[in-house]
Amino acid sequence: MKTDEQKPAVVLLSGGLDSATAAAIARDEGFAVHGLTVDYGQRHRFEIEAARRMAAWLGVCRHWVVRVELDLFGGSALTTADEVPKGRPVAEIGRGIPVTYVPARNTVLLSLALACAEVVGAADIFIGANVVDYSGYPDCRPEFIAAFEQLANLATKAAVEGQTRFRIRAPLSGLSKAQIIRRGMDLGVDYSLTHSCYDPSPAGLSCGRCDSCLLRLKGFAEAGLTDPLPYEPCR
Amino acid sequence: MKTDEQKPAVVLLSGGLDSATAAAIARDEGFAVHGLTVDYGQRHRFEIEAARRMAAWLGVCRHWVVRVELDLFGGSALTTADEVPKGRPVAEIGRGIPVTYVPARNTVLLSLALACAEVVGAADIFIGANVVDYSGYPDCRPEFIAAFEQLANLATKAAVEGQTRFRIRAPLSGLSKAQIIRRGMDLGVDYSLTHSCYDPSPAGLSCGRCDSCLLRLKGFAEAGLTDPLPYEPCR
Repeated sequence: MKTDEQKPAVVLLSGGLDSATAAAIARDEGFAVHGLTVDYGQRHRFEIEAARRMAAWLGVCRHWVVRVELDLFGGSALTTADEVPKGRPVAEIGRGIPVTYVPARNTVLLSLALACAEVVGAADIFIGANVVDYSGYPDCRPEFIAAFEQLANLATKAAVEGQTRFRIRAPLSGLSKAQIIRRGMDLGVDYSLTHSCYDPSPAGLSCGRCDSCLLRLKGFAEAGLTDPLPYEPCR
Repeated sequence: MKTDEQKPAVVLLSGGLDSATAAAIARDEGFAVHGLTVDYGQRHRFEIEAARRMAAWLGVCRHWVVRVELDLFGGSALTTADEVPKGRPVAEIGRGIPVTYVPARNTVLLSLALACAEVVGAADIFIGANVVDYSGYPDCRPEFIAAFEQLANLATKAAVEGQTRFRIRAPLSGLSKAQIIRRGMDLGVDYSLTHSCYDPSPAGLSCGRCDSCLLRLKGFAEAGLTDPLPYEPCR
């Protein structure tokens, strides 16, 4: 529930486990959350649907769903019909940058979050980026986040006129997947509403074998918990 | 005409005078130009049409037109029905940031150009940003361009894996509008194909009184040239 005292924050909501946790942290810190979901031409719609469920569950101040035609460029298994890797040993994930990398994705997402933040008067932008148990994407690293924060404070009217000092918040940055899940459980996050799979079945069941599913399952196992999501039975 | 030896470059093509000149410079430097036009919900379609004409005139390798729903956020006279200032003394333009500022626009445009560049294998990204005779936008300044270049080289697979060192090229940065026009004329740019007006008539005639028209007209006058564009007769 938003009160007059609450400051707004923009939270990038992908529909996944990490961004749900980042959003719960923002809410726990007392922010009025503006959820921002970017429809960049993901190969399936389940992520956007999960983001909508999570936004409703969080009781966000407003949920923005913005379309950007990143899929026109291609260049990623997440925006084309290219196959995503399946069944990789977990120890290999994060070594090298995989075919599921989307060119400049987090730069595009944060630039849209910055536009949103400037319009709604938010100084804080939350992103669920993390680097432990992750997929090797360069635009999740702390040095990328710091560089974007610097850029944001040069790019915008709100910063240049001295009204706002933008902060790019990546509260999960140093956490393992298990730690992220434990943090989210402490905050009551309902992970059954999230979606992580890169290649779900037509009915939306998670494959259990792509990098994203494998990291998620490992995280739940290490946290001593059971993932509430349904998985394809014959994986 | 593209030859096998030509390196690709991405050029942000807005349809305006500055980006047309930047594109001509890129072509003159021998690049195979990928024109990138971002349809961010501009209040009129003449800019996009001008960008298409300019792309055809330049003989670009490819013209990408990418939609991004920045207009959902509002916050600018350029994406809403808010009035744009008319008839301001030219000396006042550029002092303070006007209502035609679009939140985080150049950050969004460059992030999309970066995605495009990574996919087409370009290291050079051209933008027509300049700071002499301009409208006071913070995201045209050299320090912004430098910060984005730094970000680009942290954000991307191509940079992190060492294949590419991205360069954000703003070749008009230190030029006055008159100098930009003279440079473009030297390169044969047909400025009758461009569009600068923030508030054209329904038929596409330039108003001659918004900041953008006033800076353009001043530039042509100082260059000792006549603007080939038609203007509304009763301005």
